Amino acid sequence: MQKIKIFDSTLRDGAQAEGISFSAEDKLAVVQYLDNFGVDYIEGGNPASNPKDCEFFERAKQLELKTSKLVAFTSTHKVGGDPSKDMSLNAVLQAGTEYVSVFGKSWDIHVTEILNATLEQNLDIIQSTINYLTKKGKKVFFDAEHYFDGYKANPEYALKTLEVAKNAGAVALVLCDTNGATFPFETEETVKRVVELFGDLEIGIHTHNDIGLAVANAISAVRSGATHVQGTCGGFGERCGNMDLCTLIPNLQIKLGYSCVPQENIELLTNTALSIAEAANIGLDPRTPYVGASAFAHKGGMHSDAVIKQPTSYEHIPPEMVGNSRRVLMSEVAGRSAIMLALQAVDPHIDRNSEKTKKVLSKLKELEHGGYEFEGAEASLEVLISKQLGKFRPHFELGKFNVVIHEPTEDKISCVASVKIRVDGEDEMTAAEGEGPVNALDIAIRRALGVFYPEIKKMSLSDYKVRVLGSKDGTASKVRVLITSTNGKKSWRTVGVSADIIEASWLALADSVEYFLSAVR
Amino acid sequence: MQKIKIFDSTLRDGAQAEGISFSAEDKLAVVQYLDNFGVDYIEGGNPASNPKDCEFFERAKQLELKTSKLVAFTSTHKVGGDPSKDMSLNAVLQAGTEYVSVFGKSWDIHVTEILNATLEQNLDIIQSTINYLTKKGKKVFFDAEHYFDGYKANPEYALKTLEVAKNAGAVALVLCDTNGATFPFETEETVKRVVELFGDLEIGIHTHNDIGLAVANAISAVRSGATHVQGTCGGFGERCGNMDLCTLIPNLQIKLGYSCVPQENIELLTNTALSIAEAANIGLDPRTPYVGASAFAHKGGMHSDAVIKQPTSYEHIPPEMVGNSRRVLMSEVAGRSAIMLALQAVDPHIDRNSEKTKKVLSKLKELEHGGYEFEGAEASLEVLISKQLGKFRPHFELGKFNVVIHEPTEDKISCVASVKIRVDGEDEMTAAEGEGPVNALDIAIRRALGVFYPEIKKMSLSDYKVRVLGSKDGTASKVRVLITSTNGKKSWRTVGVSADIIEASWLALADSVEYFLSAVR
Repeated sequence: MQKIKIFDSTLRDGAQAEGISFSAEDKLAVVQYLDNFGVDYIEGGNPASNPKDCEFFERAKQLELKTSKLVAFTSTHKVGGDPSKDMSLNAVLQAGTEYVSVFGKSWDIHVTEILNATLEQNLDIIQSTINYLTKKGKKVFFDAEHYFDGYKANPEYALKTLEVAKNAGAVALVLCDTNGATFPFETEETVKRVVELFGDLEIGIHTHNDIGLAVANAISAVRSGATHVQGTCGGFGERCGNMDLCTLIPNLQIKLGYSCVPQENIELLTNTALSIAEAANIGLDPRTPYVGASAFAHKGGMHSDAVIKQPTSYEHIPPEMVGNSRRVLMSEVAGRSAIMLALQAVDPHIDRNSEKTKKVLSKLKELEHGGYEFEGAEASLEVLISKQLGKFRPHFELGKFNVVIHEPTEDKISCVASVKIRVDGEDEMTAAEGEGPVNALDIAIRRALGVFYPEIKKMSLSDYKVRVLGSKDGTASKVRVLITSTNGKKSWRTVGVSADIIEASWLALADSVEYFLSAVR
Repeated sequence: MQKIKIFDSTLRDGAQAEGISFSAEDKLAVVQYLDNFGVDYIEGGNPASNPKDCEFFERAKQLELKTSKLVAFTSTHKVGGDPSKDMSLNAVLQAGTEYVSVFGKSWDIHVTEILNATLEQNLDIIQSTINYLTKKGKKVFFDAEHYFDGYKANPEYALKTLEVAKNAGAVALVLCDTNGATFPFETEETVKRVVELFGDLEIGIHTHNDIGLAVANAISAVRSGATHVQGTCGGFGERCGNMDLCTLIPNLQIKLGYSCVPQENIELLTNTALSIAEAANIGLDPRTPYVGASAFAHKGGMHSDAVIKQPTSYEHIPPEMVGNSRRVLMSEVAGRSAIMLALQAVDPHIDRNSEKTKKVLSKLKELEHGGYEFEGAEASLEVLISKQLGKFRPHFELGKFNVVIHEPTEDKISCVASVKIRVDGEDEMTAAEGEGPVNALDIAIRRALGVFYPEIKKMSLSDYKVRVLGSKDGTASKVRVLITSTNGKKSWRTVGVSADIIEASWLALADSVEYFLSAVR
């Protein structure tokens, strides 16, 4: 099986999508998901563009990755500048990655009209940027921006930029369809020519989806000899997005016989996609191929009947192969194998067909129907399973709480929460002020619990996300709150669902504290 | 320019999408949108499958369509049955359309395993169904279900079904990639063979998006000689959806020189897509090619600056060509040019270096430093700029509010909000219960404002997102609330930031109401 190198740009090009703003914390989590899945390269960001990316690369130095190599991104240095004094290049060197992506212009009118440089000057800065980084020991990928439009307009010049990059020491030449409007038959011809001329290097393809053909173009490039493919998980990216690796990888590996990630990891695909979408705080379109919630959902009566009789009748692969699951609408069935894994984590000897298993499955089904989603909330799932298997020993009970919010205020303190909790039959009532109701409630609960469990001070909340489920009910819609907590070494995620955002937050907070007290401290 | 017939199946195959349920009224509206846009065929439904479709065809008889022909859908009649006594065929005749789509099996194992018939029996029912309808004066399209999988498994038999359909009088043979997992290079070969053998009929292509290649496959079929393309607007459909006509049509007509709809109608594309998505009550993915809200949205600072200088730098067509528009997103990576565009929308004569401009820029900088993000919140930005330019006339003032949340509760109502607002010197105080504090506050404010502005009933909240800014302060971190509101025709987005989620929600809600009252109603 021919190996195709997978280059993930979710954290760089994906972050240019409308509505996405990754924190350094989010980025570190995404790197772990991608490394577990087994992609070859992870582009972490542009360290010169903002302090968050700097912080990310600094903290990423502590990561021990199994499969993936981190890549820092930069552009060619300024026309007439000195690479050794260039702020962006130095930021990239400080990022400390073995690999660097350098993007440069390959479309002549972009050189003259956007960069305001001569064609020769552009070749010079490609040369000196790559040469400088190579001499510093970096492995450099050259991203030829607008390559396809450039090749149409002035093929000699476009090819010349690649030749210069190669001679300067680039280890891969990446052809970018930056405006995303190339057709597969054009991609084929263009890539074949590059492979003929520069096939001794790794030839990469980077496509965008502006005319709905990003995946088709990447496949066309691979069939024409490209061996390195760039995209993002979920297809996030500027405008209509980048090529979706979660569609491309199974297409190449399951259908066309190429090797992209370790074969046993293909079933992690859906979970990887959902976890990354969660980190991005963007809901994955349910219709997303392979990994969407509707990808194997059958609605038409004829379809549903046939698919139960003979799955291949309306399914191109068994959904479990990519970690997804069949849904016959109106009778939802959760991904049983995934749930079995979680069950076995709590009770290693549990039987697939036992009454206990059935009880957990039916509880999960009920909660999922009510808007719960345990994909990005492993700690809540573990607490839930422990409860259902009778292995849960609660560390506290909530008596009651009351929160009052008032505006205007003289200071920032607009809320007061009072709570009553019970531990081993002993009540503790306390109150706290806070900047907002969740904060006031959080402080009050910790204060009350701290009387019994002083170690609670070690845990803190590191992220808090809210998604409205459905839109028809406006502000009365159910909301799903996802909380990420940390003790500085380990992070865990919990979920709560309610029409009341305070109650949903409370549920997620309670799971987080229980998980900390039972599994982490 | 070669004409390609456009066959829209939004009302039939599109209605099989998860979450879609058209009323007869919705269907009539969609027919009008499609006829105005100028598609050739509109498949209205399966009149035998439900009474809503029957009612639709009955009422559709009154429509006077300019361009489009209505099509009724049915399957081949039962094995061993008599076509003249078949309920489905008679329902189709009663629907009274000139055109009928008949779907039949062309994959041998589907005949034997799903239909439980012999291969010969299947040919018989194809023949007698089409023959019966043709004799009744109908023009029949034969939809060869699973044609691509069938052709791979047993090419002779797949071709035989087409031959039988042709001999029975079908006017078009439509090749369906029902499971949606065919690659363009396979489509090319398969369609070419059919065109060689049956090219005197109209050859159609009907693709699904299960491996992300529906549009690529349709284009491949057209380039191989197909002259009739089936899909849905927005790509709605079973599982991952049908081929999206809103991507295909501009691809063929703007880029590849085919003619699909009258040239002057291409600019109706975005409006048609949005109106149909509205009728389907499904939000269009913002990243949808050509018609999505993000399709021409620019976020990276370099992209924004370049696109303002030279639109073709990061836009493959002028967005107005398809009735969409450019959006330069305000973000941590956006440049000054982007902000100037927003300023000029409020005051067309504003100077780049005026004191007013500086005042707005400094206010924006201050707010962004405090966690605001106007990317995706154009309505808040417009309100803010109006305020800074002294052009803002407030429609109301908030006196005070007070929200109480308590748990446990006997019913779902856990919150009470009281608010006092002032309009033109007149106070209105009211209170409301709600499922959660934001809902209670929302209801109370609307109730109070409704006394002065009854039209407030027309606006509603369609999405609500919360993002915690930074992580170090846990639940005391600032939160950013993004609200999307709609009046059913237009959507607008607003933002609020505070450490108190209720206050942040209130700020976003207030901007939304002000924007509605000043710019939308």
